Amino acid sequence: MGSPLTVALLGGGTVGASVAQLISESADDLTARIGRELKLTGIAVRDASKPRPGVDSKLLTEDAAGLAASGTDIVIEVIGGIEPAKTLIESAIANGSSIVTANKALLAAHGAHLHKLAEEAGVDLYYEAAVAGAIPLLRPLRESLAGDKVTKILGIVNGTTNFILSKMYNDGADYSVVLKEAQDLGYAEADPTADVEGFDSAAKAAILSGLAFHTNVTADDVYREGMTKVTADDIAAAKSLGYVIKLLAIAELTEDDKGVIVRVHPAMIPLTHPLASVRDAFNAVFVEAEAAGQVMFYGRGAGGAPTASSVVGDVVAAARHRITGSVGPAQSIYADLEVR
Amino acid sequence: MGSPLTVALLGGGTVGASVAQLISESADDLTARIGRELKLTGIAVRDASKPRPGVDSKLLTEDAAGLAASGTDIVIEVIGGIEPAKTLIESAIANGSSIVTANKALLAAHGAHLHKLAEEAGVDLYYEAAVAGAIPLLRPLRESLAGDKVTKILGIVNGTTNFILSKMYNDGADYSVVLKEAQDLGYAEADPTADVEGFDSAAKAAILSGLAFHTNVTADDVYREGMTKVTADDIAAAKSLGYVIKLLAIAELTEDDKGVIVRVHPAMIPLTHPLASVRDAFNAVFVEAEAAGQVMFYGRGAGGAPTASSVVGDVVAAARHRITGSVGPAQSIYADLEVR
Repeated sequence: MGSPLTVALLGGGTVGASVAQLISESADDLTARIGRELKLTGIAVRDASKPRPGVDSKLLTEDAAGLAASGTDIVIEVIGGIEPAKTLIESAIANGSSIVTANKALLAAHGAHLHKLAEEAGVDLYYEAAVAGAIPLLRPLRESLAGDKVTKILGIVNGTTNFILSKMYNDGADYSVVLKEAQDLGYAEADPTADVEGFDSAAKAAILSGLAFHTNVTADDVYREGMTKVTADDIAAAKSLGYVIKLLAIAELTEDDKGVIVRVHPAMIPLTHPLASVRDAFNAVFVEAEAAGQVMFYGRGAGGAPTASSVVGDVVAAARHRITGSVGPAQSIYADLEVR
Repeated sequence: MGSPLTVALLGGGTVGASVAQLISESADDLTARIGRELKLTGIAVRDASKPRPGVDSKLLTEDAAGLAASGTDIVIEVIGGIEPAKTLIESAIANGSSIVTANKALLAAHGAHLHKLAEEAGVDLYYEAAVAGAIPLLRPLRESLAGDKVTKILGIVNGTTNFILSKMYNDGADYSVVLKEAQDLGYAEADPTADVEGFDSAAKAAILSGLAFHTNVTADDVYREGMTKVTADDIAAAKSLGYVIKLLAIAELTEDDKGVIVRVHPAMIPLTHPLASVRDAFNAVFVEAEAAGQVMFYGRGAGGAPTASSVVGDVVAAARHRITGSVGPAQSIYADLEVR
């Protein structure tokens, strides 16, 4: 067995801690699956003096820039947000590292740029965890459905709003009451804007559209309407007709095959549709493709451990490529569709 | 752009015809995604004189052995059954071709042997279409969940029996009546044994277990009970309790992590479970993993076009590897668990 593959971890929050834990607890299995040991060389955190149970304190550093540029085989970025994540990833790519990130905002805004850098440098750029947390979704779209023509995607990709809408459906309660409950349970942020106004879903819709339709879509291109105006009465009326209201991310190819329409808004779904049974904080993405027909992916969209599962899956893929000196398929953007 | 990648197709039945059609109709997209053209060099069929609309008759040959051994970049096998498929695939691997197959019976019986041959020869062996047709399932298990520990799989992996059980549930009809209807609609074979006695599900359970638990399981290892003894009364009783009866393929790691239990039998599922809403000829596989939690994959399990979608997705993956001179991750069998 060759020398260990080195891994730098940028970010020590909930997801970062779960990633560090999963890499450490699954060390033997990961070594067997990859064919070499994974060696965590450092974890960049905001405050290295803060006690972190289960994490070797010698690994902690406040020098994210230095760690990102240290030329490890793989750099994992789970800081989130545009900066400093973007600069750190650019620096890591320039130093020859493959990238695994969970950063939806960054990918939705600068995905094309980062893909270009990674392709030029001959490194992997993976971000399975950026959309629908634990659900293996981007790799199937990028690879398994690569022989097919995707025509439409319908996604419940925000757990917070799905939790709120499920509660409103079950209890007949109003939005403001259920939001408070979701905040108390930790399912919603103190400032819930990014979730309830659909910004989070729009970023994910942009990423999904790029992969499914082989074109560039950014979060700003996405028509967006939140779910704050959905009332208990709306839900009751939908229910009486055999429908449930969900906040959907929708991306579809136009009939002339020359454009894509990407939007986020509340939608009525018949109770017989597979998406109707996606309850609480779960996510699901429903895909229609010409040959495959209807396909759906379902699972947990957020949380430390589920997100870490996707991150470490990407790490295994990138690690296998480092050993064979190859990279995974590039993003394959060739369609240049008009976003309508 | 380099010279075209050559592809030989073994089998001209429903799936073979759909594969040939998809490769031909999607030629431009496939070229853009792969980076090179795919060139079909021949289609091995039983009767080359039979007219096949949409297929270039010059490609047809009755010499499957010659075509399999012709050293094309990729050999697609959609004949099904153990022989001659096994000999043809062995010969193709010996001649340096990467393999894409939809052959569940062959993989469930001789998967370990074929994986070994492919690994030694440095070629890909892909079979996404062998389990749950169009659903991207094996690649996610092999790659996306590679950082996680799968503990349990529950699958509705046979469309025929799911169609029959759905009909019995909805109509209150007896097995024999619904079987006749399924046969008339083409959902069940004249001899339905392989489906209704669970042999088909058992082969798929064996393949899924191997990938999920990194151990060798063959179809003969699987405990198997069909669904022919499920009566309309059983289903009505289950329904009144809030359950639905499905034929499940179940594979689970034992608590001591040293064994796997793999079985196929009718099971009661609460109506609130995501598998309960998998109706008619659809398939779904529900996976529990330690970090990811619950994940489900849903879609069409059979049919020419859906199966072709998976086959051609595998062809794209294998083609990309040919260009970079690499192969995808091997099966990564290392666990040697006892099948209980």
